Amino acid sequence: MIGKYTKSLLLENKDSFLIPSDNVATVLYSHPLEHALLVLSKVGYSKIPVLDSSDHLVGLISLANIVDKMMDIDGFNSNVLDGLLVSDVMEVNVASLQQEDDLEDVLHLLVEASFLPIVDANNTFEGIITRKEILKSVNHLAHELEKRYEFIPRVNEIKEELNI
Amino acid sequence: MIGKYTKSLLLENKDSFLIPSDNVATVLYSHPLEHALLVLSKVGYSKIPVLDSSDHLVGLISLANIVDKMMDIDGFNSNVLDGLLVSDVMEVNVASLQQEDDLEDVLHLLVEASFLPIVDANNTFEGIITRKEILKSVNHLAHELEKRYEFIPRVNEIKEELNI
Repeated sequence: MIGKYTKSLLLENKDSFLIPSDNVATVLYSHPLEHALLVLSKVGYSKIPVLDSSDHLVGLISLANIVDKMMDIDGFNSNVLDGLLVSDVMEVNVASLQQEDDLEDVLHLLVEASFLPIVDANNTFEGIITRKEILKSVNHLAHELEKRYEFIPRVNEIKEELNI
Repeated sequence: MIGKYTKSLLLENKDSFLIPSDNVATVLYSHPLEHALLVLSKVGYSKIPVLDSSDHLVGLISLANIVDKMMDIDGFNSNVLDGLLVSDVMEVNVASLQQEDDLEDVLHLLVEASFLPIVDANNTFEGIITRKEILKSVNHLAHELEKRYEFIPRVNEIKEELNI
């Protein structure tokens, strides 16, 4: 469990955690793969969310997913993309969270993923939480904690230090 | 400045911060661009360090750098890569750190970059520090802090709360 003071400091920038869906590049699962390649090469994220036409989250697609598909025995062949759709190479079964989910889950899942898609109860895409925004809060936490609080070692810690 | 208790907890996993060069995929600046594309599509990082033949860090190259180069007015064209080298599209003037640099710099620079190349005093590549490893430490910090220490608000904080 994350202690209440630590949590409260980490959450002081909570409003900037979520990059809302309007500001996140996405593609439809029914888009041609070459369109996804174009979007991905321009946005500066190496992976973006894939939605259906009702804005539900259905997967993620990365530059690596697409380039991997283009590699065949003879090397690199972009003709392979002809006729393929985003749904043919996207990753499915993606970890997502709801906005009211706990900071603990956010911090835990961000160890494995560079961003987390946030959805509502109907799986409608609401935005992403990125490692970058969380690291801004971590900087804030690291710099503020001991300015605001004096740390007193708890008894078991003192015992450990004294080896008793 | 980061307080001493916070810093000490964040650094408890310090030994796992650095992913040593032997475990990091890299390319030479003189490699054909298609070779870099092959490596990048396989390694699971979207960006990797570029070295010279004496292991000095000379840049970074990403899937996006390469795919961007392949986009022309008519769309996507992999023939563009023929004859191009890593040095033709790599990013130069890359932020790097030395192992003995401060945690403060690491945390600060990782807001903008997903990993930091670590070099020695001669700019020889030693490995990378990733957001992923730092986030493991942040989880450790967040969970341990208030188990180990009791937090006492400092006087100026109490004044603020009481509006005096």
